[in-house]
Amino acid sequence: MSLSLNQRTTKRWTVEQAVAGCVRHGIEAVGLWREEVAEQGLAESAKLVREAGLRVSSLCRGGFLTRGDRAALDDNRRAVDEAAELGAACLVLVVGGLPGVAPGQAPGAAASRDLAGARATVAAVLDVLAPYAGERGVRLALEPLHPVYCPDRAVVSTLGQALDLAAPYPQEWVGVVVDTFHVWWDPQVFEQIARAGARIASYQVCDYLHPLPADVLLGRGMMGDGVIDFPPLTRAVLAAGYGGDIEVEIFNAEVWAADPDEVVTTMKERHARVVF
Amino acid sequence: MSLSLNQRTTKRWTVEQAVAGCVRHGIEAVGLWREEVAEQGLAESAKLVREAGLRVSSLCRGGFLTRGDRAALDDNRRAVDEAAELGAACLVLVVGGLPGVAPGQAPGAAASRDLAGARATVAAVLDVLAPYAGERGVRLALEPLHPVYCPDRAVVSTLGQALDLAAPYPQEWVGVVVDTFHVWWDPQVFEQIARAGARIASYQVCDYLHPLPADVLLGRGMMGDGVIDFPPLTRAVLAAGYGGDIEVEIFNAEVWAADPDEVVTTMKERHARVVF
Repeated sequence: MSLSLNQRTTKRWTVEQAVAGCVRHGIEAVGLWREEVAEQGLAESAKLVREAGLRVSSLCRGGFLTRGDRAALDDNRRAVDEAAELGAACLVLVVGGLPGVAPGQAPGAAASRDLAGARATVAAVLDVLAPYAGERGVRLALEPLHPVYCPDRAVVSTLGQALDLAAPYPQEWVGVVVDTFHVWWDPQVFEQIARAGARIASYQVCDYLHPLPADVLLGRGMMGDGVIDFPPLTRAVLAAGYGGDIEVEIFNAEVWAADPDEVVTTMKERHARVVF
Repeated sequence: MSLSLNQRTTKRWTVEQAVAGCVRHGIEAVGLWREEVAEQGLAESAKLVREAGLRVSSLCRGGFLTRGDRAALDDNRRAVDEAAELGAACLVLVVGGLPGVAPGQAPGAAASRDLAGARATVAAVLDVLAPYAGERGVRLALEPLHPVYCPDRAVVSTLGQALDLAAPYPQEWVGVVVDTFHVWWDPQVFEQIARAGARIASYQVCDYLHPLPADVLLGRGMMGDGVIDFPPLTRAVLAAGYGGDIEVEIFNAEVWAADPDEVVTTMKERHARVVF
């Protein structure tokens, strides 16, 4: 498995800077974010990674499907198109939380508590989106998120649940993300990684900080700074047959405040020392 | 199911005050905490609940077994003895987090990342503790905690995992707690409640606040103040055959600051309106 820099780890870098940073540090793959790709321009971003000889290990992110409305579906179709143009190995889908609960915000007056309904909506929208992606050669990657994000970001909380959602579709259309932060606690994680096999579309690593910061979104730490024992998870992902990149995606106020080149240097060192 | 006041909901009340409060509000059962029982005196606490005609729906709590040392085992034996003297329906076990990670604290220098090892220790200690409890007529109640507490409080994170741990023992010796706060997000919760059947030793309710407060321990809210849809969970617990009390356990700075009699009045109103 080769190292990939998810550009959100070096949040201050544009696509152009992230691509140059990867080249400078000898990193062969990059995970891109739609917002930064839009700022750089889609065609320009695609040209930059192609000319640098980088793989695009993922495009982050589609999803937020639980409203089940036309706007969400249209936005995800655009995300698929962008992933196709970038030649991304997958489009990561964060499926969304309870309808009416905005990420990081208290539930609005019209917020839903219908968790089963929200999950059913995800399945229904996926049934439209999966063939759209498949026909364009884009692989959707369902990402189960840690249950602390269930209210506002993802009603898909376990790898097993993501695999159940993916099961009706060809594995080239719909895969899953194994992200150490989200799955490390799961008593079924090893059996579900084995079950996933070739469904694993992306392996993302970062540590789980404890205690979590007040904004739980920023609890993702550099490998070695938290409580996760990485080697058993990495071995399981390898044993399942995954041969893609290993992407480092860190949301963390201190990491974001640091010099991005230093962050990448630390990331490479920790990747070599802690992850395997 | 009859309402029970877990005394931690009215944190300022001693055992004597909680017992008097239950009588005053027509509540037939109380969940006690070891710390408050020790302050009141064990024999005096037992006398108070007996004379008031209250059921003790649970004693909170044993556990923190993951160090696997003699002190932890001895303390849990004492907790069993206390539960026996109080006539508690069960002794709640919060099994403990990673060794060296104190509740709510950053990991110490000697903190472990061996999650599988910590889980194995829980099983090994339970194998000693379960017969000790069974012989004294005390039912242990394994409580799976929300995965956000996995590092520091409970390496048992799902109802399915708790049931696997309980399986080797007679159900009179080892049951499980279904606590809405901890299980509401679990995609397997309904199938695991059905599987639990007569293993359900306690049904605890409180809401899941979103966003969680900075101290995630205090994210337990009054029913109706968070994101949980209670009736499907309550119906599932009833359908599984549970006929014990429904205990309200809330850790929440605002609730603790309020007048306890007002809290109990609100609790009764919400119990009637939101839970079924």
